[in-house]
Amino acid sequence: MSAFSEDILAAIPMPLLLVGPDERIRAMNPAAVRLFSGSATGRHVVTVLRQPALLQVVERALRSGETGDGRYVDKNLAREATYKVRAAPVQDSDGNCVLLSFEDITDLEQAGEMRRDFVANVSHELKTPLTALLGFIETLRGAARNDPEVRERFLSIMEREAQRMNRLVSDLLSLSRVESAERQQPTDPVNIKALVDSTILSLESVASAENVRLITQRLDNGTEDLIVRGDRDQLQQVLTNLIENGIKYGRNGGTVQVLLSYSARELAFRGPGVQIKVVDDGAGFDPIHIPRLTERFYRVDNHRSREMGGTGLGLAIAKHIVNRHRGRFRIETEPGKGASFTVLLPALS
Amino acid sequence: MSAFSEDILAAIPMPLLLVGPDERIRAMNPAAVRLFSGSATGRHVVTVLRQPALLQVVERALRSGETGDGRYVDKNLAREATYKVRAAPVQDSDGNCVLLSFEDITDLEQAGEMRRDFVANVSHELKTPLTALLGFIETLRGAARNDPEVRERFLSIMEREAQRMNRLVSDLLSLSRVESAERQQPTDPVNIKALVDSTILSLESVASAENVRLITQRLDNGTEDLIVRGDRDQLQQVLTNLIENGIKYGRNGGTVQVLLSYSARELAFRGPGVQIKVVDDGAGFDPIHIPRLTERFYRVDNHRSREMGGTGLGLAIAKHIVNRHRGRFRIETEPGKGASFTVLLPALS
Repeated sequence: MSAFSEDILAAIPMPLLLVGPDERIRAMNPAAVRLFSGSATGRHVVTVLRQPALLQVVERALRSGETGDGRYVDKNLAREATYKVRAAPVQDSDGNCVLLSFEDITDLEQAGEMRRDFVANVSHELKTPLTALLGFIETLRGAARNDPEVRERFLSIMEREAQRMNRLVSDLLSLSRVESAERQQPTDPVNIKALVDSTILSLESVASAENVRLITQRLDNGTEDLIVRGDRDQLQQVLTNLIENGIKYGRNGGTVQVLLSYSARELAFRGPGVQIKVVDDGAGFDPIHIPRLTERFYRVDNHRSREMGGTGLGLAIAKHIVNRHRGRFRIETEPGKGASFTVLLPALS
Repeated sequence: MSAFSEDILAAIPMPLLLVGPDERIRAMNPAAVRLFSGSATGRHVVTVLRQPALLQVVERALRSGETGDGRYVDKNLAREATYKVRAAPVQDSDGNCVLLSFEDITDLEQAGEMRRDFVANVSHELKTPLTALLGFIETLRGAARNDPEVRERFLSIMEREAQRMNRLVSDLLSLSRVESAERQQPTDPVNIKALVDSTILSLESVASAENVRLITQRLDNGTEDLIVRGDRDQLQQVLTNLIENGIKYGRNGGTVQVLLSYSARELAFRGPGVQIKVVDDGAGFDPIHIPRLTERFYRVDNHRSREMGGTGLGLAIAKHIVNRHRGRFRIETEPGKGASFTVLLPALS
């Protein structure tokens, strides 16, 4: 192959394999070398592709000189990747060759799958309280129609369930909004100390209802202003979600601390950073849950979370907002020793 | 360019443009010719791309010999298509060329957008009844706590709303299931006449409650069995949705007819077909709505649909099921003259 042809193959971002009439690989572009973890030029195509349905497509294209389509699933990587493969004839001096081009359709297929999972999850989250509501309504119209005590109790449960569904719907909307803005980094300067103070103020009544004390403290004894570039409302939502979690799952009669610090050289950013750490002194949980805790609807204790009015979306929202701020989100816990949720954000200076 | 190089460009499914050192187009593969509605070989790249940000990427790649990325939005087609463009250097005998490759990311971007729209729609559909429910509960616990008449009335509305939400959640789930199976064509033989009879039987009580008569009739006087390859449950859902719509939006005291016919040579399939036509004699609607009527949550009359307990998903589900059966779905209406919903399915023989 000429240097020019090779240049052209190299200039194309999708993996490309040229197969000769002898079913041996004549050329691979750099993207294909990456996909197949090394050059395979000269080898028989069977030893490289190994997927019978796709090999049939290649053979048919070689024999008939007609274009065909197949699929290639790459399981070598940490994530499984799916490619749509086009096998098209190319005429060389010594016969029919076939050029295989690999279009990565992993993200597209995943998007469909995610939507289906999402619908299934949302339906599941709503079915249970709706069935409960319908049951209560039926009882209130029938057996309990003249029992004011039962009525009051049922209405109070119904209110709680309807409020939780309402929160679920709101959380779904915020999550969707945060996701769609995730690529645009926010630019407004936000004073973290002031934001923490006002968030704590707005949560005081919730905390004292649960007999929990909210404390904020500067960890590093520094005097720098803690300023980040951010979206004030979204950062407030992160703080609210974390502090509310601390109140819900912390110790009754305990404390939730919001610990702040500044670092001029934060490793994660190779620059200045602000750290916000929300710590409770509750029961903690098995650290095995940590990696999945920011997935939608993942809960350490399903029953308890729902009882507490949780939507299963609070940490997912927090994680996405922190991502949008190019920050880091870290969870630590030890059973019996409480849990801590740390947000690290690039500081403005 | 050699015939071999040209062959290679032609074998790649993505549009490719080769730009010479003089900023003129040296070669285009057939996919690029389609994208730009004709060959532009020899023309200056500015006259073809016309999008300043992308032209800058091309110029930079030509000058620096480095790879760059840009975006190209194609508005020539009925749908707007978005491409991620890679501009990579290629060395030719007379200097630096640049190869532009166009990766179509329309579907991927649309998938994200659809999910966001979907969440926004679902949230909107649920927010209203939830707010209503909460209002009723509050009144029942407060002002109306000792008024059995108001209580009964409110509980009955609450029941209707909760049932509608429940149906909405079920419809979301079926829609999601149908979509995920849309590519697998069902294979079981289904007798359409028997299915229509049993569906009508199960809807008799709903119809007579609305004072509507259900009639089924063979239109073509034929005697062939009406057999299709299908998913019985899904086809029953289509029939149920269409007949229920006829009952809801048809004339009180009127009729809903299910008209069946067989054609040995149905044009749409170039083979035998079965036609199921559900016709009401109600008020009909402005045909302007027809093209959008199978979109999720699209309604001719929002208020009336909700009042009737509609989820806004029935026709979307029907359309997807018919698609899965490789059938056709057609809506006709004239204000004052009722509406007809026709399902055309390939017949087994």
